[in-house]
Order: sequence, then C-alpha cells, then structure tokens
Amino acid sequence: MKCVEHRACFGGWQDVYRHHSSVLDCDMAFAVYLPPQATHEAVPVLYWLSGLTCTEQNFITKAGAQRYAAECGMALVVPDTSPRGDDVPDAEGYDLGKGAGFYLNATMAPWSRHYRMYDYVVHELPALIEAQCPVTGARAISGHSMGGHGALAIALKNPGRYRSVSAFSPIVAPSRVPWGETAFSAYLGDDRETWKAYDATELMKTAKEKLPMLIDQGDADEFLHTQLRPDLLMIEAHAAGYPAILRMQPGYDHSYYFVASFIGEHIAHHAAAFRRS
Amino acid sequence: MKCVEHRACFGGWQDVYRHHSSVLDCDMAFAVYLPPQATHEAVPVLYWLSGLTCTEQNFITKAGAQRYAAECGMALVVPDTSPRGDDVPDAEGYDLGKGAGFYLNATMAPWSRHYRMYDYVVHELPALIEAQCPVTGARAISGHSMGGHGALAIALKNPGRYRSVSAFSPIVAPSRVPWGETAFSAYLGDDRETWKAYDATELMKTAKEKLPMLIDQGDADEFLHTQLRPDLLMIEAHAAGYPAILRMQPGYDHSYYFVASFIGEHIAHHAAAFRRS
Repeated sequence: MKCVEHRACFGGWQDVYRHHSSVLDCDMAFAVYLPPQATHEAVPVLYWLSGLTCTEQNFITKAGAQRYAAECGMALVVPDTSPRGDDVPDAEGYDLGKGAGFYLNATMAPWSRHYRMYDYVVHELPALIEAQCPVTGARAISGHSMGGHGALAIALKNPGRYRSVSAFSPIVAPSRVPWGETAFSAYLGDDRETWKAYDATELMKTAKEKLPMLIDQGDADEFLHTQLRPDLLMIEAHAAGYPAILRMQPGYDHSYYFVASFIGEHIAHHAAAFRRS
Repeated sequence: MKCVEHRACFGGWQDVYRHHSSVLDCDMAFAVYLPPQATHEAVPVLYWLSGLTCTEQNFITKAGAQRYAAECGMALVVPDTSPRGDDVPDAEGYDLGKGAGFYLNATMAPWSRHYRMYDYVVHELPALIEAQCPVTGARAISGHSMGGHGALAIALKNPGRYRSVSAFSPIVAPSRVPWGETAFSAYLGDDRETWKAYDATELMKTAKEKLPMLIDQGDADEFLHTQLRPDLLMIEAHAAGYPAILRMQPGYDHSYYFVASFIGEHIAHHAAAFRRS
C-alpha cells in the first residue's frame, strides 16, 4: 500500500492509501485516520462505509469525525464505495455501478468480476489494516445511507467480527425499495431469495449474537419514506429482541451536516463497546 | 435575499442565501450558520473569509465549526471569495480574478467595477445580516490563507467594527510575496504606496486600537516560507506592542484538516472577546 495523502489532523494523521485489491481485481484508495494514541499503542478501528456517489474522501473531509476519534483513541478506516478503474463496468445511473457497490458480492455478469465489496470490506481490507497499521483486532462498523445498509448487513452477518454497529439514514430493506431493487437485480439477478443474504431486515429475523446497534435518522430526510424505511428494520428488531436503538432526529436531512451533528455520539457508542469487551 | 440551502446542523441551521450585491454589481452567495440560541435571542457573528479558489461552501462543509458555534451561541457568516457571474472579468491563474478577490477595492480596469470585496465584507454584507438575521452588532473576523490576509487587514483598518480577529495560515505581507504581488499589481496598479492600505504588516505599523489577535500556522505548510511569512507581521506586532499571538503548529499543512483541528480554539478566542465587551 502506498501513502498518497498524509495530513496532520487533531494531533493524529489523516492518511489516504492506494493499493491493489486482489478481491476486487483493481486498484483502490482508502483512508485511515490514526489518532494521537496510535503513536504509542495499538488502537481499535471503526470502519465507515459511505453512501451512493461517494469516494473515500467524503467522510474524511465533511464529517468532522477525527476530533472524536482523537479523543477516544480510535482509528477510522474508510474504503471507497465500489471498485474503480477503466476496466470496471459502470452504468448510467448514480445508483448502479461505480460509486454504488452496495457492499455485496455480485454474482451476475458483467458485475461479478470486480463488484465484491462485501469480501473487500469484511476480509481483505481489515487483514491489510491489521497487518500494516498500529491497530488491535477490535472492530466496529458504521455508515451512511447505502453505507448504513452495508454496516447493518455486514454486522448482522458477522457479529463475531465487530463489537458494535451504527448507521446514519440507512437503507434497511434494500429488497423492498427502489435503490436496492435496482442494484440487487443487476448484481444478484432476479431470484429474490438470494437478496436476503444482504438485506438487514431479513437478516434481523435470524440474528443470534446481538451487537449494540444505534441508528440515527433525520425526519426531514428526502429519502426517508421511499428508500430508507427504518421502521421496517425496527419491526423485526422488536420481534427478535435485538437491542437496536432508532433515534428520529427532528429537522435533519440526508446530508453530511446530519452525519457531522451526531458522529460524536456514534463514536462514543462504539468506544463504549470497545471498553466493555 | 433568497434562501437556497437550509439544513439542520448541531441543533441550528446551516443556510445559504443568494442576493444581489450593489457594491459588487453581481449576484452573490453567502452562508449563514445560526446556532440554536438564535431561535430565542440575538447572537454575535463571526465572519469567515476563505482562501484562494474557495466559495462560500468550503468552510461550511469542511471546517466543522458549527459544533463550536452551537456551543458558544455564535452565528457564522461566510461570503464567497470574489464577485461572480458571466459579466465579471476573470484571469487564467487561480490567484487572480474569480476566487481571488483579496478582500480589497480594485482601482484598475477591468477589475474596478466588480472587485470591491473590501466594501462588501466590511459594509454591505454586515448591514444585510444585521437587518435580516437574529444577530447583535457584535462582530469578529477570521479567515484562512488569502482570507487570513483579509481578516487581518480588515480588522487592523476597522478595529472599532470588530471585537477580535484570528487567522489560519494567513498571507500577512501581500506586498512582499508572489500571490499578493500578482493580485495587488493587477487590482491596484504599480504604485506600491497604494498597496499599503491592504497589507496587514504595513497596517500593523500604525495600528492604534488593539484587538485580541490569534494566528495559527502549520509548520509543514507548503506555502509558509514563500507566500505566508507570519514572521514579518510578528516583527511589526512586537514593535507596536500589539497583542498578537502566533502559534506554530508542528506537522500541520495548509489544508482544511488544519483549520478543523483548531477552529474550536479560534471560536473560543472570539467568544471570550464577545463576553468581555
């Protein structure tokens, strides 16, 4: 991995690396924030998954998360949202192809060769981070919108790999909303049974090991009733006795101003889980 | 003035307005952050002046200042960095013309019709804000790079209009560095005597009324020794007995990661001045 940005930030370092991903079969960029504590000890890691159209840059430039990560002694790792490069297939819309990987392993042509963001985020990237950076094996995961879907689905599928999960404005039931239907039908095909493996609301029905789960949702979010529908997840969480907290935040929309306003509380949620375990 | 963005942020509102500036003879955008306190009382205002190539967006999306403004009960007002529009003359380089107004009143053709950012920032914009927004007449001013030049020069010329001043990585002696020489020779002509009216280091020599002045400068800033030279201002501040504090911050560069890391302390500096007066 090659460092392409290295900037002092809140006493730590906001870095961006490029590397070749064997899982995605392309070159990728990802961001790492190392807090001041990382100069003398290994720190736990919060993985952040971004939303549609984002790269590794949006969260690190707009969320203001580094302040809280520096206070808590937590690293932040932020992958891109899809495979990248001229060889990688794309689509016209912003909700399919580059910038819209949906954190799954595609099974359909032409997507299946590169679009394996699930394996990249769950396996390849943490293995690289844990081999190369001063971090412990303690992980948490969070994300926004499409990345909230990714965080919830990945945590529900892999509770042993994470200490806690959170999400901002997540797509919680991709099988039942337009963004998810577009992506899942392209990446996974028409058999909706296969979609359940990446649908947080479906995964909630069979969740066994339970993680602390915090979801924030703005009630002025323009996508709330059409694409996000956190109520669908909460119905299943309630039925499953899963300790999920959904906070409806009055007046907030889908932007990074919303993420910035509450990321401190999400980092505190994950820091508490790291301390407990 | 017409509201074109209205987003909840840290319990307050991050708004962007468009209006016609009679001083600049063009339409302009500016940003206003109103903290939660502004719903029930008038609040003081920190004016933020951005650097080369910026618009009103850079600071509000990247600095994370709203958190601190919400804690202190302070509004943030962020103008664009130059006149805008198809009728406004421009230049090839990033350091002259649009995005590079240098917070002065140009006297040379073709610039003098629109490039009057000094009058806009000192007079027209505050008059508009104070007529339309729930703010007091208490003002402070800060900025980054070219905007740090603007904040320092404007505060030194108008100490009665501001309670305090601060700057990040400012151009402090525009008459003596390439960015300033390019801009001042175009906007003000070849008579360097006229440049002194907008050169903070020159203005420091005759400063009478003194304001609390805080300057942060990263020592890994790629422009430190060629364009910024805060040492030149501090020599004059020392000679004048001016209460200027320059903090060299080890490892930090010229980016908004630097601004984000210390904007909280700048807002505290201004909040303290508002409390004292």
